[in-house]
Amino acid sequence: MEKINGTLYSNQIYSNTGSREFTEKATEAAFLLGGIGTGNVSLGSRGDLRDWEIFNHPNKGLKLPNKFFSIWAKEMNQPSIAKVLEGKVPPPHSGSHGYYPNTAAGLPRMSSSALKGEYPIANVVFKDNDLPVDVELEAYTPFIPLNTEDSGIPCAILKYKVKNKSEMKTDVAIAGSLYNPVGGIEYDEFSNYQGLGGLNVNEVREEKDFKGLYMYSKKYDKNDLKYGNVALTTTNKNVTFKPVWLRGRWFDEMQEFWDDFSKDGKLNDLGYTTPSTDRKSVNSIDSVFYERQSDTGSLSIYETLNPQEEKEFLFLLTWYFPNRINGWSERHRVKEKGREITQNYYSKRFNSSWDVTKYIYENFDRLKTESFKFHHALFSSTLPNYVLEAISSNITVLRSPTCMWLKDGHFLGYEGCFDNWGCCDGNCTHVWGYAQTLAFLFPELERNMRKTEFLEELEEDGHMNFRAVKMFDSEWIFQEKKAPAAVDGQMGSIMRVYREWKISGDKEFLDNMWPHVKKALTFALVQWDTDGDLVLDGIQHNTYDIEFHGPNPLSHLFFLGALRAVEEMAKIENDLEMAEKCKNIFDLSRSRTDDMLWNGEYYIQKINDVDEVKYQHGEGCLSDQLLAQQIAHILGLGYLLPEEHVNKAIQSIFKYNFRDNFSNHVNCQRTYVMDDEKGLVLCSWPNGGRPKFPFIYSDEVWTGVEYQVATHLIYEGFVDEGLTIVKAIKERHDGIKRNPWNEVECGHHYARSMASWGLLLSLSGFNVDMGKKEISFNPVINKENFSSFWSTGTAWGTYHQEMDEITGEIIPEIKVLYGDLSGVKVKTSSKELTL
Amino acid sequence: MEKINGTLYSNQIYSNTGSREFTEKATEAAFLLGGIGTGNVSLGSRGDLRDWEIFNHPNKGLKLPNKFFSIWAKEMNQPSIAKVLEGKVPPPHSGSHGYYPNTAAGLPRMSSSALKGEYPIANVVFKDNDLPVDVELEAYTPFIPLNTEDSGIPCAILKYKVKNKSEMKTDVAIAGSLYNPVGGIEYDEFSNYQGLGGLNVNEVREEKDFKGLYMYSKKYDKNDLKYGNVALTTTNKNVTFKPVWLRGRWFDEMQEFWDDFSKDGKLNDLGYTTPSTDRKSVNSIDSVFYERQSDTGSLSIYETLNPQEEKEFLFLLTWYFPNRINGWSERHRVKEKGREITQNYYSKRFNSSWDVTKYIYENFDRLKTESFKFHHALFSSTLPNYVLEAISSNITVLRSPTCMWLKDGHFLGYEGCFDNWGCCDGNCTHVWGYAQTLAFLFPELERNMRKTEFLEELEEDGHMNFRAVKMFDSEWIFQEKKAPAAVDGQMGSIMRVYREWKISGDKEFLDNMWPHVKKALTFALVQWDTDGDLVLDGIQHNTYDIEFHGPNPLSHLFFLGALRAVEEMAKIENDLEMAEKCKNIFDLSRSRTDDMLWNGEYYIQKINDVDEVKYQHGEGCLSDQLLAQQIAHILGLGYLLPEEHVNKAIQSIFKYNFRDNFSNHVNCQRTYVMDDEKGLVLCSWPNGGRPKFPFIYSDEVWTGVEYQVATHLIYEGFVDEGLTIVKAIKERHDGIKRNPWNEVECGHHYARSMASWGLLLSLSGFNVDMGKKEISFNPVINKENFSSFWSTGTAWGTYHQEMDEITGEIIPEIKVLYGDLSGVKVKTSSKELTL
Repeated sequence: MEKINGTLYSNQIYSNTGSREFTEKATEAAFLLGGIGTGNVSLGSRGDLRDWEIFNHPNKGLKLPNKFFSIWAKEMNQPSIAKVLEGKVPPPHSGSHGYYPNTAAGLPRMSSSALKGEYPIANVVFKDNDLPVDVELEAYTPFIPLNTEDSGIPCAILKYKVKNKSEMKTDVAIAGSLYNPVGGIEYDEFSNYQGLGGLNVNEVREEKDFKGLYMYSKKYDKNDLKYGNVALTTTNKNVTFKPVWLRGRWFDEMQEFWDDFSKDGKLNDLGYTTPSTDRKSVNSIDSVFYERQSDTGSLSIYETLNPQEEKEFLFLLTWYFPNRINGWSERHRVKEKGREITQNYYSKRFNSSWDVTKYIYENFDRLKTESFKFHHALFSSTLPNYVLEAISSNITVLRSPTCMWLKDGHFLGYEGCFDNWGCCDGNCTHVWGYAQTLAFLFPELERNMRKTEFLEELEEDGHMNFRAVKMFDSEWIFQEKKAPAAVDGQMGSIMRVYREWKISGDKEFLDNMWPHVKKALTFALVQWDTDGDLVLDGIQHNTYDIEFHGPNPLSHLFFLGALRAVEEMAKIENDLEMAEKCKNIFDLSRSRTDDMLWNGEYYIQKINDVDEVKYQHGEGCLSDQLLAQQIAHILGLGYLLPEEHVNKAIQSIFKYNFRDNFSNHVNCQRTYVMDDEKGLVLCSWPNGGRPKFPFIYSDEVWTGVEYQVATHLIYEGFVDEGLTIVKAIKERHDGIKRNPWNEVECGHHYARSMASWGLLLSLSGFNVDMGKKEISFNPVINKENFSSFWSTGTAWGTYHQEMDEITGEIIPEIKVLYGDLSGVKVKTSSKELTL
Repeated sequence: MEKINGTLYSNQIYSNTGSREFTEKATEAAFLLGGIGTGNVSLGSRGDLRDWEIFNHPNKGLKLPNKFFSIWAKEMNQPSIAKVLEGKVPPPHSGSHGYYPNTAAGLPRMSSSALKGEYPIANVVFKDNDLPVDVELEAYTPFIPLNTEDSGIPCAILKYKVKNKSEMKTDVAIAGSLYNPVGGIEYDEFSNYQGLGGLNVNEVREEKDFKGLYMYSKKYDKNDLKYGNVALTTTNKNVTFKPVWLRGRWFDEMQEFWDDFSKDGKLNDLGYTTPSTDRKSVNSIDSVFYERQSDTGSLSIYETLNPQEEKEFLFLLTWYFPNRINGWSERHRVKEKGREITQNYYSKRFNSSWDVTKYIYENFDRLKTESFKFHHALFSSTLPNYVLEAISSNITVLRSPTCMWLKDGHFLGYEGCFDNWGCCDGNCTHVWGYAQTLAFLFPELERNMRKTEFLEELEEDGHMNFRAVKMFDSEWIFQEKKAPAAVDGQMGSIMRVYREWKISGDKEFLDNMWPHVKKALTFALVQWDTDGDLVLDGIQHNTYDIEFHGPNPLSHLFFLGALRAVEEMAKIENDLEMAEKCKNIFDLSRSRTDDMLWNGEYYIQKINDVDEVKYQHGEGCLSDQLLAQQIAHILGLGYLLPEEHVNKAIQSIFKYNFRDNFSNHVNCQRTYVMDDEKGLVLCSWPNGGRPKFPFIYSDEVWTGVEYQVATHLIYEGFVDEGLTIVKAIKERHDGIKRNPWNEVECGHHYARSMASWGLLLSLSGFNVDMGKKEISFNPVINKENFSSFWSTGTAWGTYHQEMDEITGEIIPEIKVLYGDLSGVKVKTSSKELTL
């Protein structure tokens, strides 16, 4: 196939060259640990724990003091060495007061570190010139598709694997230090810190098979927003504790800890028996001179290693902060007395972080085996490494602070995150409409989102509030008026009901949705087809936060997609009248739309004067013009507009909107791509006609749009072009410029980025219809030796096909690694089998 | 001379290899523009204006929106090109919402930039692959030693020199854009901005010789803390204006500006006639949808350049924010009604930024000539480039927000700055005691500090408050008690009175000080000599923010230095009894101290149990043990302790405390030096005896201490060792790790760093005694061809000496470039002459 333009990568584009490593210089690389709806702590490229987001809201940049691991080693007959078990602190070093002691920046540390993350598992390899041992950290939080609960445990498992490089017996200790964060923390301008609560207790606890530190506060009762606790434990046997660091002045606490640890790797308990002071006893933050109101605690694991021996030092960090505000934000929250606070889902299963700890140790092998099985299933794929990165890294969104999972079962998502709070409330239908990841990994949660939309937010007249806030007793108001419905969001939600049905085969779900789905579809004609010609021409609010006026491809393809989905669902619901009605409207609307909007290369917006109303696209080539078509492909709904036009239009999108250099790109909007980076802009005007003020994001680059276009290109046969876009995205996220596990748009961990799961679907040609009990595969690359992950609502596993070298026959193999697929027909290009 | 240790640099150490350049990657490089007591805006390595600190407090990181220069060029018969006149925006690019339009990050910009700063003048060279012109920016604020007023003008002069590279006539426009900052600004979490005040006016004004934008607010009266205005003007003739950017929604304003400017380099006035809306009319920051309450304005200079022609585009930025809180901080400020606010000194001379502008244009040539004369005098020196950097870059402190200059004449300095406020109030005597720069450049201001100390802060019993707060009706309280006197600060102030006399020959000043000086000295024996043996042994508060107990070299050398200074001053004051008394005490005290504290290599603290009281140094080798001796050398007071011991001790300090690698340095205190950097620690314990909790900064590295030790090493003949320290400091400040013009300790622009001026004094062997009307030079490096700057209280200029190649004779030459030195004797190694 001829290339669409000359900016493509070389042949390498099909091969898997292995996951990337991020050295300590990759300051932006931060791998999120933590479960669904639990919050997170991230693992940085230095092996540091950063961005403590365990307190029920985002917290990018939150540093806890004294929170580092350290290693002590003594090779027989040699002096001992102690270092912070982190890579070097990268520049700039330009803070107004240098680095404060609680950062441990002044202590010796490892010569280098390299983080490799294959979500959900991360590894950090540490090197050091002085130590007689090599150290590697393995970090993860259990992640098992379809097992939502066990993918939602508030914990981080940190296992250091230490290998004695020397020919001598070597004693090694690794200490984990953790500040008791209950009650919160503040830093003064100097960087002295002080607890905001007080009465904190760091307790040594021992169980039969594990022991560790349990950190809590005596100040808060169970219903307090600040109530909670953390635990740092181990199953290693030889452990010493310093449950409470020296309560000293100035920088004494760090001095005492380091002197103690670096002497012999063992820690002295200083014998404190009282909780930290209560906050109310001091007036101001002057913590160099007064009590700090919370304490750091440490535990040190000690092992003796024979020459060349490797041993494991296991640390399990768990947290428990069950209470959160009963709402999205100050604006949209329950204000009724006694109901201001709600709980995380995990509080239904656990009573404390110690409880969480017990559960994990009791189920350790299973949780680990199944998590690693998923990891292996995904990463043993023959898909290109950057594609695997794109697919896997955005799973992060589901387990980031972008999402919450409440005890009443609601799974909720912001669009993304500010540094310190969720950004843009309400399961936003048009943004989440691009996402595929959740539907294919935790379909139960995805169905919950449909229920929220259709059972809670759909009004009597079929108007669906595209932001769901009613569960918090609120209404969605925008600029002091009731917000309009969003055409792409509402029609997309209809299509997604069909998706959820196909993935799950859950007839009860479909039956429940059905009357509401019909109502939501009917609304489109009432609301947006002002002249009854079955072409949407009204004022159409959409994902660009503005309204398109008049007929336009984005809106209209969604309308067509929804018609097709409803037609299919009507057949299942045996509502043949509705099915036929949809088909009739679809046929008419489709041909009128094509006539009206096709310009020979792509679809345009039909508007007399593109400058009469601001923020239109007019003659522009919109990257999202075929979004609904891409979704229709995933759902097996066929072409919504003539195939040759769709095929030509997706080519035009790549041709006109993909840029291999942004140095001279003029963008007066928000900037996500710069300089010599590559990316796909949201819109361009190859034939002129750019409005004076085009829609407000038209010159921007969004990974969610890039992924859906890439997926679509692959579906239409333009595999190289699709992969080119994906490779460009991951190159931009190189750990130095941006975090590989955080694709930003209107906020961190942006939901739209979960469109990347479409790459797995399109490249493997995977189709699922659990209603019909059928799945199928049709890989489009590496056909002679192809492996990839697949998932349905009941099972997941791997698909492999290989060409028999002699016969040339393609031999497929499917493995079910989790769940049950019995009775399901599997179709491949060469065979059909029933499991 | 044998090297003290093996960590020295090569022979290169004596040569001047030119000032460093900082490319756009040097994110930390920020060259302060602005005068004494005026606040600053900094020039970044991208040619960007950053850190807007013009509002009477530090403001590191404050960004103003839309504040960029941009260039448009049209080579005849070619399409026009428009770019932001800044280097590329360096990574990371990981903000939660990308870059917002008001950063202009999405616009085309120059291929590269390189900043070279030779304080007070900076140059930025811009390169671009597309533009037909080369562009260079010259930026400065008038700086004329001894002319304090003209070194204290609130302005930045920005001259772009544009050269037409092409063989065709080329039209060029440069636009300067500035946000009206009056009233303040806030950003929401998205990065939308909004004025905090309102009723802002951007006015086009034309005078006979210049024109420009005058930006003010109708909201504040003259006495309001927020009252003020800014002006951006030019003397170029062909100018267009857009005084007020489009008051639109979303990102309209940037779109309209850029479309307008990039079309033809000329700007359209949009015709607004009303001020911006008043803040009170909106409730919340929702500035995408409402008014922003302040406006950006731009002016564009247009010139036509013949092939290869160069033209200048001059912009003058002036500001006027006269009012500031009448105090150091919330804690130490005048609370009396009606006196809560005071004014900057510059408000005595000017009524507005327009007034400032007029003054500058009226005196433009003189201000420029004399500023450039100083620059040339300093940088045409044969001193090594890194020494010149060390000397010049810390002049910055005087013109940074670390200092204020009030209308009542008080010149006041914090120790340094937090990002947003001064850090550590009160002309702190012990920190400022290391500084030499002010005394030699603006001796009038330095004398003002002595007056504050001796006339305002010296109590009846001779206790000098080491932080001056009485001018603000306040008392210095520390941990709820009256703060102790500081031995190093108080004795140092006494020595500095003698310095001010020697620099100025101002007898009236000395007469005024004299009775207070005696009182301050006497206090030392009463307060700190508990057993009457003339050795200070009490509880001695000092610059390490703790108290030394018992005899110790830091305190005691200061006592000896003060005795010598008072002896000399007594002679001048004809108080022979006092002179003799001082001499007697000095002799006794000196020999007892030497007996008691000398350990064969250096001086130690005499204390029975170094762990009985925390924060001592005991047997440690303290880098500051000879600080007062270094000052005594500068003042020509001779040896305070036996020369051979002093000489040996300074060697020991370098030997034990200079490190050429910090990777394994253990520092539980604050960290200013890391990894493979070099530096001098404050203390070490080569013979053991390190206290469990040594004094709280003992493992840190402070540039102020490094400079005084380097200066002292040079005085004692260890030139290579001294220069090694200096080179190490400037290498650490490489623009990527740290700002070359901001040496941080307990805050930015830390006063102690002004010890670096001592390098000029010691390397040139410069001595001044205006009392005797004598100055002398005795260079210690590059003697065959030596040039350097010198200054006294009445004049400044250059000293040059050269070896006659035939006779081998050293031929000295002194140039007076400013002021009057008539009647002053100049001594050099070869000649003596009277000017």
